[in-house]
Amino acid sequence: MTGDLQTFADFAGELADRAGDFIRPLFRQPIEIVSKADESPVTEADRGAERVMRGLIGERFPDHGIVGEEFGAENPDAKWVWHLDPIDGTKSFITGSAQFVTLIGLTRYGKPVVGVINQPVNGERWLGVSGRPTVFNGRAVTTRACADLGAAALYTWGAECLEGENGPALRRLTESVGLRRFSADGYAYGLLAMGFVDIVVDDDLKPHDYLALAPVVEGAGGRISDWDGRAIEFGVGARTLACGDAAIHARALELLRG
Amino acid sequence: MTGDLQTFADFAGELADRAGDFIRPLFRQPIEIVSKADESPVTEADRGAERVMRGLIGERFPDHGIVGEEFGAENPDAKWVWHLDPIDGTKSFITGSAQFVTLIGLTRYGKPVVGVINQPVNGERWLGVSGRPTVFNGRAVTTRACADLGAAALYTWGAECLEGENGPALRRLTESVGLRRFSADGYAYGLLAMGFVDIVVDDDLKPHDYLALAPVVEGAGGRISDWDGRAIEFGVGARTLACGDAAIHARALELLRG
Repeated sequence: MTGDLQTFADFAGELADRAGDFIRPLFRQPIEIVSKADESPVTEADRGAERVMRGLIGERFPDHGIVGEEFGAENPDAKWVWHLDPIDGTKSFITGSAQFVTLIGLTRYGKPVVGVINQPVNGERWLGVSGRPTVFNGRAVTTRACADLGAAALYTWGAECLEGENGPALRRLTESVGLRRFSADGYAYGLLAMGFVDIVVDDDLKPHDYLALAPVVEGAGGRISDWDGRAIEFGVGARTLACGDAAIHARALELLRG
Repeated sequence: MTGDLQTFADFAGELADRAGDFIRPLFRQPIEIVSKADESPVTEADRGAERVMRGLIGERFPDHGIVGEEFGAENPDAKWVWHLDPIDGTKSFITGSAQFVTLIGLTRYGKPVVGVINQPVNGERWLGVSGRPTVFNGRAVTTRACADLGAAALYTWGAECLEGENGPALRRLTESVGLRRFSADGYAYGLLAMGFVDIVVDDDLKPHDYLALAPVVEGAGGRISDWDGRAIEFGVGARTLACGDAAIHARALELLRG
């Protein structure tokens, strides 16, 4: 690993710390909820935490790009770009459920090289760095083997998705597994990286989601791609499939393709 | 409140402590998962925690009845009966998600008078006692008002339920609210009791689930009934509707009835 990556991985941890410090006091407190243009909810916790991270990046690495969920893109064609989702799972956050996470991804020429999934209330942090084992709170974790799709535990975002354009594909997969959980967010990819979930599938992720997730899943020994089997990079990953076991990933891809 | 109820409420806390002591070391550890006859999963954590609670009740109140999820009924026609679900949300537990809860309910002649919802990993406990304010970790909590069904946050068990016999009723309700979360368990009723969720609806609860939930929701100022509007008691509550706001409860009942 280059010195750069170590520096950036440490810095990603600082970003997560400072975003968490901003978010934690606002959890389970009265807070104004605003509906965005896409009808997803946002609060001052989302906005403030992203501002904090943008400020830190601007001070420390002024030539890096930043693409955040709340405040758009600055210098997105830079070699190094930070992809920020201050609160992934805002619906969890605003209903008092501590399964929202802060997602921080770093790309080099569009390829994800550092990813953090951070749950600030309960102090859970996954860190993935290209070429290194993924760590959870400092301890290496790995995905688990899964011999049989029929025994797999699957998390996915949406019950609603079952009825949309990707519904038939999602049904083929979700109806083939042993255990299903819906309304999952980025937190589920952390559970997969530590070997408690076998499949996470989503059909509408943004770069600020999937770019952080990829290094965490891959560094834990898992397989993550889009539904066409392509490696995750900027612009590739809105329809995401992550599996702990490579053979299950191949089988799940077949089912998604129909 | 009678001295009896205070004694029993304190004892319910002891049961939750001891069940939690049993469960906590087994969380996120390799554990054998057995499929029960209804295909729901169970582990030694469920069984062991129920054994611990049964043992304590038998020592302390040998004339009380016990009905537990894993080991059935003993003396269920007693005046006082304990209803135990050692791990509600086993699917959360086995996938490493700390949103499972231990549910402990006490009935007097079939009516729920004490309820505990306990999350042992993160140390979250709701206690409801007939006629008293519900407390969360010792602090009184209340449900919130909700002026408009279209702004309500709803949690429910099942995406799968949308397609079953109760599907049309659940769709009418879930499609009328502002925010939906699926795959919810007993934990969601705690979030409702502290004012972060407006509606929790389920269509297949067991007495060891709904009997513990009722005192927690009612003591926080919420309304809970079955889908026919009947008060929860032993045998009434498999189809459960809990709301923080009484007017929303009335409107949600209308939608469920069609």
